[in-house]
Amino acid sequence: HSLLWRFFFFISGCLFSLTRGRFFSPASRTASGSCGGLTGKVDRFGGVTVNLAEVGLPADVSESLFSRLLQESLSQWKAEGKVAVWLRVPISLSRCAAAASTHGFTFHHAAHDQAVLALWLGDGESRLPGFATHQIGVAGAVVDESNGKVLVVQDRNKTKNAWKFPGGLSDPGENIGATAVREVLEETGVRSEFRSLLSIRQQHNHPGAFGMSDMYIICRLRPLTYDINFCTQECLRCEWLGLAELAKTDNTTPITSRVAKLLLHGLEQGFDKIDLTMEELPAVYSGMFYQLYHRQLPPTPKS
Amino acid sequence: HSLLWRFFFFISGCLFSLTRGRFFSPASRTASGSCGGLTGKVDRFGGVTVNLAEVGLPADVSESLFSRLLQESLSQWKAEGKVAVWLRVPISLSRCAAAASTHGFTFHHAAHDQAVLALWLGDGESRLPGFATHQIGVAGAVVDESNGKVLVVQDRNKTKNAWKFPGGLSDPGENIGATAVREVLEETGVRSEFRSLLSIRQQHNHPGAFGMSDMYIICRLRPLTYDINFCTQECLRCEWLGLAELAKTDNTTPITSRVAKLLLHGLEQGFDKIDLTMEELPAVYSGMFYQLYHRQLPPTPKS
Repeated sequence: HSLLWRFFFFISGCLFSLTRGRFFSPASRTASGSCGGLTGKVDRFGGVTVNLAEVGLPADVSESLFSRLLQESLSQWKAEGKVAVWLRVPISLSRCAAAASTHGFTFHHAAHDQAVLALWLGDGESRLPGFATHQIGVAGAVVDESNGKVLVVQDRNKTKNAWKFPGGLSDPGENIGATAVREVLEETGVRSEFRSLLSIRQQHNHPGAFGMSDMYIICRLRPLTYDINFCTQECLRCEWLGLAELAKTDNTTPITSRVAKLLLHGLEQGFDKIDLTMEELPAVYSGMFYQLYHRQLPPTPKS
Repeated sequence: HSLLWRFFFFISGCLFSLTRGRFFSPASRTASGSCGGLTGKVDRFGGVTVNLAEVGLPADVSESLFSRLLQESLSQWKAEGKVAVWLRVPISLSRCAAAASTHGFTFHHAAHDQAVLALWLGDGESRLPGFATHQIGVAGAVVDESNGKVLVVQDRNKTKNAWKFPGGLSDPGENIGATAVREVLEETGVRSEFRSLLSIRQQHNHPGAFGMSDMYIICRLRPLTYDINFCTQECLRCEWLGLAELAKTDNTTPITSRVAKLLLHGLEQGFDKIDLTMEELPAVYSGMFYQLYHRQLPPTPKS
């Protein structure tokens, strides 16, 4: 339910024309009204979205004036049985966010030059969808199959100099494999290509994620170059280390040690034993593509 | 680098005392100054964090007054070679966010009753870490091994009534397996337990994620009860469907069909062929735990 709501919220925000259908017209009439209330767009779930950049507020509108406008509109929306109100607030009109908070609005999210506030008007607990909860960190285990060595680094900024796989946070919109290849190149100077996804770690209340959740993914990469030219800002050391040694040593993190054992097993029994392979498929609702990871299916699955 | 920065930002925000060490004292002196500038805390990366709830601003501070205060402080911080400024702005003082935007500040993130703004003062492009980029959606494939059937639903709100696995978005701080079990129970009335992780899909610019990225994870669950009592608000139909039939039918989504084939393969060859198993391990920097998913290692790994 909430997913669909997000979809409609996004549509009404980004594809204005799409919302001028049967939902919009009556809503805009009642929402704008004749008494100077705010004009909103109504979604199919009974929520109203008001973009303060579009409703013709004076640039110097005061908190008290906006508070009165909002109060009028809220009374109407409640009378109409609306279940939620979304406010898109340009940063230059931020004082309106303070005014809205006196009516119970809170921040849903904010980025760049816009904040989005929300207020639940329906019965019971809010059923409004939340915002993004996870950051994605990706590490690349670059394995040289010719000698069973893997590329590892020691972080300059960590107190304990434990061997780990090079990696870092995904940029917005960046695919998992692309992050692994980019971070390995930036930290070690080694060029590589994505082979598979090996391991996923989920961690909550993460200090490194502003208290949000962290998803840490380790990929298997194949080296395209072998000469190390590591980033001295980030790394203290960088080496091609034998997998057997990395699997044994105490001078590493638990997850690195675990993945070293996994890679050693793959080296001996075949990486198909440990890999999740990736395939790119078209998304249903758009021309966009998504990447799907799972265990490889046999060429002709028995079915 | 950015990850560490986030760590320090979090620490300085949540564990104030930790920041009163050698970084804080000189910074607070220079940052507060004698001319009524703002008092900030300096992190090890040369960034300053100012919490407007803690610097004793008058509740009715005007945008113009705050703008002057900020201008003075910015001049000092630039002179001191600070590379970034973080502003924590309570929603009631939102007008200060508008004032800050005239000095180049933008929203980094916002939630509940606080917004966090940031400004990069260093050379070149901003190296400030971003905020959470992904929402996590989880579906549960509940497989009855006794008859090779799986629990599927048809969404009431989708136009095309395709069979899919019950699922939904993770709540903040909720583990992947817990989301799958909860959503299956809420949508179908069937109780189940987590067995493994089967598939991961990554999708960007997702309409259902307010334009952010979406990670959709399918888990394999074992049924604990079998009677269906599905949520008529969310679902149009709910059935135990044969995996072979689900793998064949066109009346489903590409990813559901793919996972049906995967499950059929697992049913015939053993689920160990398709599973990523989960283990809970202690985090290094705290008493917290994280969940790690990867292919099962043989009882005694050759190493």
